[in-house]
Amino acid sequence: MNITMIEAAAQRLSGHARRTPLLSSPFLDEIAGRRVLVKPECLQHTGSFKYRGGYAAISALAPDVRARGVLAYSSGNHAQGVALAARQHGIPAVIIMPEDAPALKIANTRALGAEVVLYDRAGAQTREALGGELTQTRDLTLIRPYDEPQVIAGQGTCGLEIASQARDAGVETADVLVCCGGGGLTSGIALALEAHAPCLRARPVEPEGFDDTARSLVAGQILRNDRLSGGLCDAILTPAPGDLTFPIMQRLCGPGLVVTDTQALDAMAQAFLRLKLVAEPGGAVALAAALYHADQIDGDAVICVISGGNVDADVFARASRLGNA
Amino acid sequence: MNITMIEAAAQRLSGHARRTPLLSSPFLDEIAGRRVLVKPECLQHTGSFKYRGGYAAISALAPDVRARGVLAYSSGNHAQGVALAARQHGIPAVIIMPEDAPALKIANTRALGAEVVLYDRAGAQTREALGGELTQTRDLTLIRPYDEPQVIAGQGTCGLEIASQARDAGVETADVLVCCGGGGLTSGIALALEAHAPCLRARPVEPEGFDDTARSLVAGQILRNDRLSGGLCDAILTPAPGDLTFPIMQRLCGPGLVVTDTQALDAMAQAFLRLKLVAEPGGAVALAAALYHADQIDGDAVICVISGGNVDADVFARASRLGNA
Repeated sequence: MNITMIEAAAQRLSGHARRTPLLSSPFLDEIAGRRVLVKPECLQHTGSFKYRGGYAAISALAPDVRARGVLAYSSGNHAQGVALAARQHGIPAVIIMPEDAPALKIANTRALGAEVVLYDRAGAQTREALGGELTQTRDLTLIRPYDEPQVIAGQGTCGLEIASQARDAGVETADVLVCCGGGGLTSGIALALEAHAPCLRARPVEPEGFDDTARSLVAGQILRNDRLSGGLCDAILTPAPGDLTFPIMQRLCGPGLVVTDTQALDAMAQAFLRLKLVAEPGGAVALAAALYHADQIDGDAVICVISGGNVDADVFARASRLGNA
Repeated sequence: MNITMIEAAAQRLSGHARRTPLLSSPFLDEIAGRRVLVKPECLQHTGSFKYRGGYAAISALAPDVRARGVLAYSSGNHAQGVALAARQHGIPAVIIMPEDAPALKIANTRALGAEVVLYDRAGAQTREALGGELTQTRDLTLIRPYDEPQVIAGQGTCGLEIASQARDAGVETADVLVCCGGGGLTSGIALALEAHAPCLRARPVEPEGFDDTARSLVAGQILRNDRLSGGLCDAILTPAPGDLTFPIMQRLCGPGLVVTDTQALDAMAQAFLRLKLVAEPGGAVALAAALYHADQIDGDAVICVISGGNVDADVFARASRLGNA
């Protein structure tokens, strides 16, 4: 796993992935007490950064392997990213999704042409076991959501853009806050920044109660979450940082930040009000940390990724009304 | 009023106005039956294209005139655009707003440092008369919302970007649907396309009951709206096309399109669901025409501008829930 793989992924993604802009608002700067720059991956195809990794992984497969199809397990964003990338490559995709995933994410994945298999997140059979069975019986290639070099490479292309856009915006030193589930986006961005903007430092941000990565970074070893459901930030509720992603984060990332679900909703309201963006709860945790944990951040500027915007209307309405209060 | 003024405005706006991207979604293409490309000016500074015209006009003033300050009348988006541009130039701004403008727009205009004067939209004194009084007594320069060459030039910079981005996207011939109030954005875009993308044709889109421009284009002369309030699309409810903007639209634009308030809300729901964008009702009428009046549009692709995103949370919630139905 190295920068060359990220740069190669950027080549394959060119003309496919969207180069998302770097946005700002004086109102956000005022809340945070410093310049806030937002990388809105909710504007990426399928509404999250996951399209980058899905496309990068599928495009890296040998043509005969790829033609047999791919399988993914995902709470929804990886599902949609893989589904669209598979459709663009003209190959079948089977997606294993938890039955409590947002209705919108399940519907979108099906609409993008994938076959969806639902499972019980708290049940006896892990999604990994179910995925293993399906890959064997149907000869599909598993596209892991984060612990997969080509997926990390794809997510890292977001970091290449941040490095270049931060330079254009005159930002030399800053923390780059990244919404963190299994660590694919965080570790990919960290590798890209190491090579192209060594004065920018990636830091994972997680929701309270699901701060496996923050605790793992402190402990120096992989620690797991106690529970795997019940939080609002469904997109980033994963059991533990990955075997591939954790060593990268340990080597390159600053300390993790933790925000409450309420802070994530408040950040969604600010994204609605000030940036005219739709962020999902898990996609808003980095902005929440930038706005509401300013004391844990150094520097004149902070960059934060809004990792996705696939949220049901009811949850969004609950959040957006906070902004008018 | 010519292309040279638009190109000069683009020079002055460089490094200030945001170059908004050109977005798309396979789900929108499916509804419209053709490729839909969306220019999201809701992502512009202050949440609407109006910042372009405000900055272009203020930056074109002679320094001694500019230093005395500016005045604008606006239902809200022009207000915010002028307020931010004035603040960036370090000069005072007085903004005359209707008292029934969305609370968010009034609050934002004040927060951007402007002095806000409220008036009764249905009252005896027109905003023009009130503005005339204030410019005289306080020696301010009036920045008209649309019937002002430098404002049209600023809005036209959006058309320069569309011309270039459409070429990059492989679109050669298409209608460019523009949310239309007084016609500043529509005429500015039309002039830019005439010079840089003559196979793209601007067409104004208006809400039902406020289709002064569509009717004027048919009649070949400026016709007025019967009423000036009561519609959901507050951003684009103006009495009539402007004396400067109408001849430009008459010479260059295709027929106007008219959508219902319900279609505008539906388009807001699609922008929420498929593009992760916050559009206001008046800002969504062009997308509504692209999606729901496909029979009135020719070609394999259609380009539409989302002109703004400054909407209160309650109206947005009402719209976004339609998308999940």
